[in-house]
Amino acid sequence: MYNNTFGHLLRLTTFGESHGIAIGGVIDGFPANIVIDYQFIQRELDRRKPGQSKITTARKESDKVEFLSGIFEGKTTGCPIGFEIRNTNQHSSDYEEMRHRYRPSHADYTYTQKYGFRDHRGGGRSSARETACRVVGGAIAKLALKQLGIKITAYTSQVGALKLNKSYKELDFEHIEQEATRCPDPTMAPKMESLISEIKEKGDTIGGVISCVIAHCPIGLGQPIFGRLGAQLAQAMLSINAAKGFDYGEGFSGLEMLGSEQKDCFENRDGKIRTQTNHSGGIQGGISNGEDIYFRVAFKPIATLLMEQKTVDINGNETSITARGRHDPCVLPRAVPIVEAMAAMTILDNYLLDKASRL
Amino acid sequence: MYNNTFGHLLRLTTFGESHGIAIGGVIDGFPANIVIDYQFIQRELDRRKPGQSKITTARKESDKVEFLSGIFEGKTTGCPIGFEIRNTNQHSSDYEEMRHRYRPSHADYTYTQKYGFRDHRGGGRSSARETACRVVGGAIAKLALKQLGIKITAYTSQVGALKLNKSYKELDFEHIEQEATRCPDPTMAPKMESLISEIKEKGDTIGGVISCVIAHCPIGLGQPIFGRLGAQLAQAMLSINAAKGFDYGEGFSGLEMLGSEQKDCFENRDGKIRTQTNHSGGIQGGISNGEDIYFRVAFKPIATLLMEQKTVDINGNETSITARGRHDPCVLPRAVPIVEAMAAMTILDNYLLDKASRL
Amino acid sequence: MYNNTFGHLLRLTTFGESHGIAIGGVIDGFPANIVIDYQFIQRELDRRKPGQSKITTARKESDKVEFLSGIFEGKTTGCPIGFEIRNTNQHSSDYEEMRHRYRPSHADYTYTQKYGFRDHRGGGRSSARETACRVVGGAIAKLALKQLGIKITAYTSQVGALKLNKSYKELDFEHIEQEATRCPDPTMAPKMESLISEIKEKGDTIGGVISCVIAHCPIGLGQPIFGRLGAQLAQAMLSINAAKGFDYGEGFSGLEMLGSEQKDCFENRDGKIRTQTNHSGGIQGGISNGEDIYFRVAFKPIATLLMEQKTVDINGNETSITARGRHDPCVLPRAVPIVEAMAAMTILDNYLLDKASRL
Amino acid sequence: MYNNTFGHLLRLTTFGESHGIAIGGVIDGFPANIVIDYQFIQRELDRRKPGQSKITTARKESDKVEFLSGIFEGKTTGCPIGFEIRNTNQHSSDYEEMRHRYRPSHADYTYTQKYGFRDHRGGGRSSARETACRVVGGAIAKLALKQLGIKITAYTSQVGALKLNKSYKELDFEHIEQEATRCPDPTMAPKMESLISEIKEKGDTIGGVISCVIAHCPIGLGQPIFGRLGAQLAQAMLSINAAKGFDYGEGFSGLEMLGSEQKDCFENRDGKIRTQTNHSGGIQGGISNGEDIYFRVAFKPIATLLMEQKTVDINGNETSITARGRHDPCVLPRAVPIVEAMAAMTILDNYLLDKASRL
Repeated sequence: MYNNTFGHLLRLTTFGESHGIAIGGVIDGFPANIVIDYQFIQRELDRRKPGQSKITTARKESDKVEFLSGIFEGKTTGCPIGFEIRNTNQHSSDYEEMRHRYRPSHADYTYTQKYGFRDHRGGGRSSARETACRVVGGAIAKLALKQLGIKITAYTSQVGALKLNKSYKELDFEHIEQEATRCPDPTMAPKMESLISEIKEKGDTIGGVISCVIAHCPIGLGQPIFGRLGAQLAQAMLSINAAKGFDYGEGFSGLEMLGSEQKDCFENRDGKIRTQTNHSGGIQGGISNGEDIYFRVAFKPIATLLMEQKTVDINGNETSITARGRHDPCVLPRAVPIVEAMAAMTILDNYLLDKASRL
Repeated sequence: MYNNTFGHLLRLTTFGESHGIAIGGVIDGFPANIVIDYQFIQRELDRRKPGQSKITTARKESDKVEFLSGIFEGKTTGCPIGFEIRNTNQHSSDYEEMRHRYRPSHADYTYTQKYGFRDHRGGGRSSARETACRVVGGAIAKLALKQLGIKITAYTSQVGALKLNKSYKELDFEHIEQEATRCPDPTMAPKMESLISEIKEKGDTIGGVISCVIAHCPIGLGQPIFGRLGAQLAQAMLSINAAKGFDYGEGFSGLEMLGSEQKDCFENRDGKIRTQTNHSGGIQGGISNGEDIYFRVAFKPIATLLMEQKTVDINGNETSITARGRHDPCVLPRAVPIVEAMAAMTILDNYLLDKASRL
Repeated sequence: MYNNTFGHLLRLTTFGESHGIAIGGVIDGFPANIVIDYQFIQRELDRRKPGQSKITTARKESDKVEFLSGIFEGKTTGCPIGFEIRNTNQHSSDYEEMRHRYRPSHADYTYTQKYGFRDHRGGGRSSARETACRVVGGAIAKLALKQLGIKITAYTSQVGALKLNKSYKELDFEHIEQEATRCPDPTMAPKMESLISEIKEKGDTIGGVISCVIAHCPIGLGQPIFGRLGAQLAQAMLSINAAKGFDYGEGFSGLEMLGSEQKDCFENRDGKIRTQTNHSGGIQGGISNGEDIYFRVAFKPIATLLMEQKTVDINGNETSITARGRHDPCVLPRAVPIVEAMAAMTILDNYLLDKASRL
Repeated sequence: MYNNTFGHLLRLTTFGESHGIAIGGVIDGFPANIVIDYQFIQRELDRRKPGQSKITTARKESDKVEFLSGIFEGKTTGCPIGFEIRNTNQHSSDYEEMRHRYRPSHADYTYTQKYGFRDHRGGGRSSARETACRVVGGAIAKLALKQLGIKITAYTSQVGALKLNKSYKELDFEHIEQEATRCPDPTMAPKMESLISEIKEKGDTIGGVISCVIAHCPIGLGQPIFGRLGAQLAQAMLSINAAKGFDYGEGFSGLEMLGSEQKDCFENRDGKIRTQTNHSGGIQGGISNGEDIYFRVAFKPIATLLMEQKTVDINGNETSITARGRHDPCVLPRAVPIVEAMAAMTILDNYLLDKASRL
């Protein structure tokens, strides 16, 4: 779990810049003998790719993944799975202005300070294009989770001030993919879509919240103390571009409730020990308890505005910059599969870690 | 960063149960030649220890730390710093009832499922007593950060519905330690204290928010992609007992602001590149930008209620349980030094990591 | 696997200096529900402790280990096992001369260069006293390996030019502990003992080889590519003080044999796939194949000579030094349990890693 | 340091099978601002590639590396360097017989047992083809080491019973690349070459020793205790295909010398503290002392014999197998750059680790 590698036993290492030759990665520690469903993996990538609807960027990227190793006659071999996605639709000239100027609230300045210089084209390594590799890793992880009966579903639950005040249990998850916003609520979704369109027209951007539910997670996952399952999910989610907050269970929302109102009493339900309520969000003492795990991720409005902004150049002279490029007014719809991917890798990693905790 | 070890280059490994012989730890990778201020370390521990005020548990623990290695003639040697805190004031009989019953919303059930059985006394390993070791690690880290001019300050900013709606810049940090609640606002602090006293009387518990500010953090800390500084802080904070949420910069609170309202334009201030505003919370592209880092941690009301609760026993029979023991009605005041400790270790670890990123 | 921590899933972190307050460690990732045999652990420590026979140092150390956590009602809990051995018989004044002078072929100079200064007393952290903690970790690991039917046996096979030219299969392992040299061959053992006594009288030291056999190792352990089982064992063994070489299977000895002479043909023996010969030393492609794993570790003569040696002081002035202290003329007999301990931890770690390689 | 990843701060992750689409890797943690000399990297790869001389395999592989990321305008950016080498000259039909039979002394059986099945073509992941990726990583590391003035040189010092009994100081390293054997001694080299040719004609194979020298290594590299520099080099070297032994300094060869004969006394040479002799091999207490580091790696004769061998098939039936394919009679000449590559990455990794050990 360091630098460009995510995970402990299941590990994804990614590489690649927005306007370089290719992005890609290596998935290591993945179990052998899992059948690879290439169409499923591509569908997951398609959920993340730009140009899906009127409210996402018009940028076209085919995002075709090529697997280079680790799969033999359709099944994983236990050896590392190398893959790449060639970059094909780069308009690097859109970014020439960025070579000598720092875009506000982007990584331009901090990368330059840390590394001495940077690949300025399209944000280079700091571009969210990198997350396509996470979606590949997550899709592969989902193939294993499916065999374990674990299901992960994310959806848009807030855009700006428009907040869906419903429990995930009241929602029809089948409806998520039918909405450009990936908000499954048929009343809220069109409102969110209108708001995003409006913001887009102004060249502005807007943030929001993605909610995620992990159903049928086995009991016992998580490394109590520093690797509490909630802590691992927090780290996974906050590693996504533009993510600024995370909570699970009642989180920030339940602070007005007392301990007596948030307790999850145990009961014997049909011979199984279950909690009557699930304020804890499926994790107790850092370990999954078999109930649904649910959490929220806050995303800021992304910083690429199609309007003039004050800034400085690399010599410290004050100047201004206007993004050209093709950008999303709201990252939430495309971030939904990324949240799922990070959750999928975290859960599979912890499933393997848990196996190794017994003789 | 795995199991009972926190950090990459600076690493704290902790051990020990609430009612065992001792808790303790090993701090590895700490730089040589740092003078150890034992009084400072003990003062930090005293800030966390129980029995400090009327609103914390009446439990008495002296929490005297003994250093066993890694320090020679008052200075660190670069070798691992082993330490221990002997347990002295355990009333294990208070917990006999827990041996065969699961306390609701505690780790009793999940530990038993994961490991097959558990040390039930005082919550065993899942007890927040373990965090005393983190405070030791954090205090040691602070000694190094002090040489670097980095300052970390946490305080209580919300208890239940009582929310301090002020920027940290408006607060007098010198006042924090004068309040039992560790809320520095002289108007809000007594209200919070009254609320906690009230809750305590009922045998109930209450949660809230701790805010934290890291001042004078050097530019360039953080491992972009999976180890974004915000992601590392999130993991560090969510690893604390009862923590359920984390955000930094505008986080969950700023979702109603558009991108044009949240942007941090660069300016040249006295020859230095600075941002005009700091919505980003001092981190851009996962890397510190030299501005103040600020974040919030949400803590749920702890689950130990001094009232009867329904539950099941280890055979799955429905029963009830009433906590005896001596508990905190609100963990926030004592969690303040823990939040600081985790932040201090995270920042020092990243300082060392950053050094290694250049030849 | 970094700094003072050994292992991936099963991890031993050690701390402590030769003349500090205590040495100790934390064993993390050890499976729950293993019964702890305290007498066995102490016996293992006694095999390593000084003063066992006329050919080891006269230094007396009781080396009593105290377990501080991770064990409840006689069984491991899955939580970290903290332990310590208090230092009791230190003659620090023996080492005052070393404060300002570097002993030849010791770590005095390199530690000072790396860390700026050092705890000079008894070699500080670089003392082989640290290996007592490894023996504790190894003893705990052996308790788990015993349940798996895996047996690890090391013995002295060479002292100086006295080389035991017999396969381990010709030896009676039961005889090892009856010899002060821990060489099980009744003809060779007394010769080795005489040689060591002779060397000791001169204040000189002598090296040699420890051989080790791992019997009944399950098939499939090892992480091919960088974590080949042989590579992990090499790292484990070369991390022991004074170890300078490692080989397994035919190793350096078989270089005169051709491929056609070293091949291990497969056969079906009583329904099991086995190799007819075992030139490979039980590891093929980096993975255990179910045959006996056997390897050798070369130990140099230790550098502490009871005679005057030329050296420099910390200011670079040429001077001389004569060790006082109490030292071993030959580390091999006491290193036998250390080799076994490192092997035991490596094998158990890889057993757990292997479990995690399947869904 | 786990599975397909090598290193701590500088990390190489490799992927790919012998007869798959491509092999490749990701180099992470490499410092920014290092100029990439593509010709040098390709030359290093050419030193490893098959078909260089009459005594290596006739197999032709162009082994052209393509860099996919992490380099911008000719310099490293501090971001991960992804690269790949497409497989182009695979004769998979040569290996059809291996699908159902286990080649003796190969990884066929152990991979099948560990993972349930395997890519049998050309040995799949267990093929030494993977080491081309290590040479890429090593070549990149050498570019940084060059800036630090550190030089790594390996050469063939033994083939079968033909052993070069000279110190590395007596050899002309400039001559290494002029010999097909990579033995720099003009008397020994032709003898070795004749021996290998003879062995090749018989369809047999032969092993030997590669020696390596690291000159101008800074003082202070290595993590004492488990990460002693010698232990790290041992692990690095034993992770190479067919490597079975490692020693450094006097190693196995110096066991007949007493401590008084092996000591390295310090002296003040021109104002610098140096050792008069270098029996220690440049490492003391696990830390480099500024003298030359030298070590040996033993390679077994590889198992691919062009003669019939007894074995079993995957159902356990006894049968026989005759390798077809195109193989090396002796891996040593081509393993020389691999040994250097692993050493280069180990030293650069430890250089970065050492930087991070001070505030």
